[in-house]
Amino acid sequence: MRIFSGKIMSYNLLKGKRGLIFGALNDRSIAWKVAERTYEEGAAFVLTNTPVSIRLGDIDKLAEKCNTIVIPADATKIEDLENLVQKGVEHLGGKFDFVLHSIGMSPNVRKGRMYDDLDYGYLQQTLDISAISFHKVLQTCRKFDAIGDWGSVVALSYIAAQRTLYGYNDMADAKAMLESIARSFGYIYGREKNIRINTVSQSPTMTTAGSGVMGLDNLMDFAERMSPLGNATAEECADFIITLFSDLTRKVTMQNLYHDGGYSSMGMSFQAMNIYNEGLEYQDVKNDKSKKKKK
Amino acid sequence: MRIFSGKIMSYNLLKGKRGLIFGALNDRSIAWKVAERTYEEGAAFVLTNTPVSIRLGDIDKLAEKCNTIVIPADATKIEDLENLVQKGVEHLGGKFDFVLHSIGMSPNVRKGRMYDDLDYGYLQQTLDISAISFHKVLQTCRKFDAIGDWGSVVALSYIAAQRTLYGYNDMADAKAMLESIARSFGYIYGREKNIRINTVSQSPTMTTAGSGVMGLDNLMDFAERMSPLGNATAEECADFIITLFSDLTRKVTMQNLYHDGGYSSMGMSFQAMNIYNEGLEYQDVKNDKSKKKKK
Amino acid sequence: MRIFSGKIMSYNLLKGKRGLIFGALNDRSIAWKVAERTYEEGAAFVLTNTPVSIRLGDIDKLAEKCNTIVIPADATKIEDLENLVQKGVEHLGGKFDFVLHSIGMSPNVRKGRMYDDLDYGYLQQTLDISAISFHKVLQTCRKFDAIGDWGSVVALSYIAAQRTLYGYNDMADAKAMLESIARSFGYIYGREKNIRINTVSQSPTMTTAGSGVMGLDNLMDFAERMSPLGNATAEECADFIITLFSDLTRKVTMQNLYHDGGYSSMGMSFQAMNIYNEGLEYQDVKNDKSKKKKK
Amino acid sequence: MRIFSGKIMSYNLLKGKRGLIFGALNDRSIAWKVAERTYEEGAAFVLTNTPVSIRLGDIDKLAEKCNTIVIPADATKIEDLENLVQKGVEHLGGKFDFVLHSIGMSPNVRKGRMYDDLDYGYLQQTLDISAISFHKVLQTCRKFDAIGDWGSVVALSYIAAQRTLYGYNDMADAKAMLESIARSFGYIYGREKNIRINTVSQSPTMTTAGSGVMGLDNLMDFAERMSPLGNATAEECADFIITLFSDLTRKVTMQNLYHDGGYSSMGMSFQAMNIYNEGLEYQDVKNDKSKKKKK
Repeated sequence: MRIFSGKIMSYNLLKGKRGLIFGALNDRSIAWKVAERTYEEGAAFVLTNTPVSIRLGDIDKLAEKCNTIVIPADATKIEDLENLVQKGVEHLGGKFDFVLHSIGMSPNVRKGRMYDDLDYGYLQQTLDISAISFHKVLQTCRKFDAIGDWGSVVALSYIAAQRTLYGYNDMADAKAMLESIARSFGYIYGREKNIRINTVSQSPTMTTAGSGVMGLDNLMDFAERMSPLGNATAEECADFIITLFSDLTRKVTMQNLYHDGGYSSMGMSFQAMNIYNEGLEYQDVKNDKSKKKKK
Repeated sequence: MRIFSGKIMSYNLLKGKRGLIFGALNDRSIAWKVAERTYEEGAAFVLTNTPVSIRLGDIDKLAEKCNTIVIPADATKIEDLENLVQKGVEHLGGKFDFVLHSIGMSPNVRKGRMYDDLDYGYLQQTLDISAISFHKVLQTCRKFDAIGDWGSVVALSYIAAQRTLYGYNDMADAKAMLESIARSFGYIYGREKNIRINTVSQSPTMTTAGSGVMGLDNLMDFAERMSPLGNATAEECADFIITLFSDLTRKVTMQNLYHDGGYSSMGMSFQAMNIYNEGLEYQDVKNDKSKKKKK
Repeated sequence: MRIFSGKIMSYNLLKGKRGLIFGALNDRSIAWKVAERTYEEGAAFVLTNTPVSIRLGDIDKLAEKCNTIVIPADATKIEDLENLVQKGVEHLGGKFDFVLHSIGMSPNVRKGRMYDDLDYGYLQQTLDISAISFHKVLQTCRKFDAIGDWGSVVALSYIAAQRTLYGYNDMADAKAMLESIARSFGYIYGREKNIRINTVSQSPTMTTAGSGVMGLDNLMDFAERMSPLGNATAEECADFIITLFSDLTRKVTMQNLYHDGGYSSMGMSFQAMNIYNEGLEYQDVKNDKSKKKKK
Repeated sequence: MRIFSGKIMSYNLLKGKRGLIFGALNDRSIAWKVAERTYEEGAAFVLTNTPVSIRLGDIDKLAEKCNTIVIPADATKIEDLENLVQKGVEHLGGKFDFVLHSIGMSPNVRKGRMYDDLDYGYLQQTLDISAISFHKVLQTCRKFDAIGDWGSVVALSYIAAQRTLYGYNDMADAKAMLESIARSFGYIYGREKNIRINTVSQSPTMTTAGSGVMGLDNLMDFAERMSPLGNATAEECADFIITLFSDLTRKVTMQNLYHDGGYSSMGMSFQAMNIYNEGLEYQDVKNDKSKKKKK
């Protein structure tokens, strides 16, 4: 049943499935919404995040709601992941049927290092946290044969992997690598265990992580007006991911799937152009004023 | 409930939804499988095909099974489409929530005209049947406001739209145009009515249409060995399309979605390379024999 | 030597090469610039355009400058193309080494028919003029074996083939088809004669054709600020095409090459965002004023 | 003049230009061919490689031929790069107009670690050598303002960045990141200094690096038969890169350019399918034999 989203119905799309969900911080997190929706759809899962994020956020509340546990793990540390995977499978009483990777952070962005003045120690951390962690999760699961046949793995990405956005910095390179890992590992895990691995390229979303990005408000406004269906919300993203975890999408793998209201296929919308036109007009107005002042 | 696929359970993913399905010829058709699955998931719909296809195929049986009617229409003729759309909405008692376009045919392919010796009258037919018909369907629906808000439209495509396959001929250009129409119309229909339009790029499938393609058997073998999850079947394609028609994918639009077991993201698999290697070896063996004979 | 561009030097990149250039109307045309530059680089060629365009434009002046002739031809008519190809080869005394296709027109755009209210007779014309003509040129050349081994063919395209721009209408679908034709024919003409076929996806350019597009000024401003190197001019496009016609790019084929100052790989630039931000601010200013007025 | 390639003519495309070339090991290296061709086209440049590669290879011979020096540098070490950039500019008497990055190595591949059993220390080295080194080169050049306005930077990539090939391992992820760096830095360096940054995705090439890849022979045979123009050679790659370094391609940036005889746009060629068919037949022949034996 739909408990959290206020609706009554559940499709039971994930009935009997077991999962592992990384990255739920608070109720704005996409991973949080995914947890709620998978629960509504009949799945059982374990939650995980870094000890710091567990302390700062509300993941324990989520675990309580979803009748599950939180197993702390730093996804860059193999020993943490091994513990997580083993305990997770044990707690659930069986292999994972789905895994969500929703992890990303750039110390270069946080510390205000521009892309042409990167700290390479930070860059390594960006990559380790935001991309290599995905490989580590997969390799650890593979080692313990912890994902069941026809399982489904999703990692969250962003269009910066394909198109440069000022300010997104080295996260763009990390997302490009993340999507490549999905393909590379998708081949191996697919041919051996029929496990599919995809990335979802989501609209800019006002999560706690997102809200740290300078100027995200106006960028979201642009994306909203560019996208014929508007930006996709975290809830809608969770709905979409449900379908990817279900048995109905078994042959979709090694793909980067845009969940963005059509943004990625837009060159220019009438509505976005209107605002841009206003901006040009405003500049003219200001220039006229300043010219008059000079006179 | 799952009647046709022999399973008991239905997710009720399309409960209460109404639809319009083009292109079911016989039980090998993808459109046929989509009809069965949408019915199982609780949808009502009308079926349509050209008078010739209706005569040659078994669509009436399908209609009976699914408790619906067949409205004949040539999708290249506006008057047929207008009749279809009006009668369809009337029969269902409300606007369409989903539309499937599964139509394609090239007279150039049928008549054995090579791509560098096309008949331009035939080319026009290829485009009209395989691509422009999609626009005509959408424009007719738009004119009669026949698709409900947040409706979902899917057309079937093939990777030939991106990569050239010998023998696929002018169908490649038609599919490229089909995918472009999905984007172009997706923008307009999205911003006005929140209707999403996508194409599904499906594995080569042994439908009646497909079986006419020379050498499809071996091409399917290649695709099967290249794809980590193997080729997607018509049934699996129907399952995937169910998700696109459901309310769980509302913000996916203007996309071409590969449903192909990973094929599109593969450069070379171990298994496909093995067969290729055997082919090279066999050539050597044969060459050695013919050399010996010459001596 | 560089005659027209005011510089002295020529690289002799096309010394001894023969060509066929479609689409020069006046000195704002990209095809015009390509003609000038190929002439400077040592090539001989024949020019062609429709009788109407020849009358309306200045192509005769260009022919005089470049010491060549104009052979009128409607690129949608096979008999015209056959005459053109035969006379062109005869005039030049040998096969073409390069061909430029710079042709596009949409009656739907001209007559103000919106994309969800297309006239299908017009659509057929759009396709015939803007896409199928490219196939006809290639098929006619193939029939008369009129392009020499390792020849190079280029058609001009636009990013609307990948991303929807309001107002670009059915030209988007035509460009998508044009790019597909380049791939499809590139395969056949490549394997048989080593001829390469590519499309160049050029920045929005203020040609006579372009200036008819509503709101192109501001769209060009947006593209200019989005592109790190700014929009590419017609002259720069000609320079780029020179390299594609030269012997230095012999293994580049079946590609769509963006010549756009980086636009296609941008998600958002600082400069474009600034104007957009001003537009949002201006709206707020106006809203405040109107609120005050209401009071 | 063309000295090395045995032809007489030079286009003087790079007359007066200065450059920096990474990665020439021996005369099979693409970087070696680029050095020869840029020299023929009138450029001056400095060569660089790691001390080990300098010792193992013949770069000193190349330097002698091209009348220049070798400045040893490990491209993963900032201090080496700073020394290289400063000495290079000093030696050439001015800023670089072009830079070639042709560097890649995976310890995981070398040590036979499979992609689902990566050593993460090795992975870090793969990334540092094959991708991050590109950022370090650019950031160091930026710091010393060592690339002149309208300069051109090229890095060599491979289609594994988009499509998974068995055995290419973590180099695929490194190439995906490399191409992302080209975009990310292309934006910044473009808007500030009009410097363009592109990657060239080259056919599989039998360099010393390439020859280490297991089964490359047969993969090259497949690519050869798939590509209408056949695989691109190292010499042809050098020719193509010459155009990217020239003033004729000033508005091409942030692109990944396929130089592969059309391979990337092919789905299946007649010739490659033939060999594959032979492989299937050979399997049948063998199976028949083994069945007979069993009897």
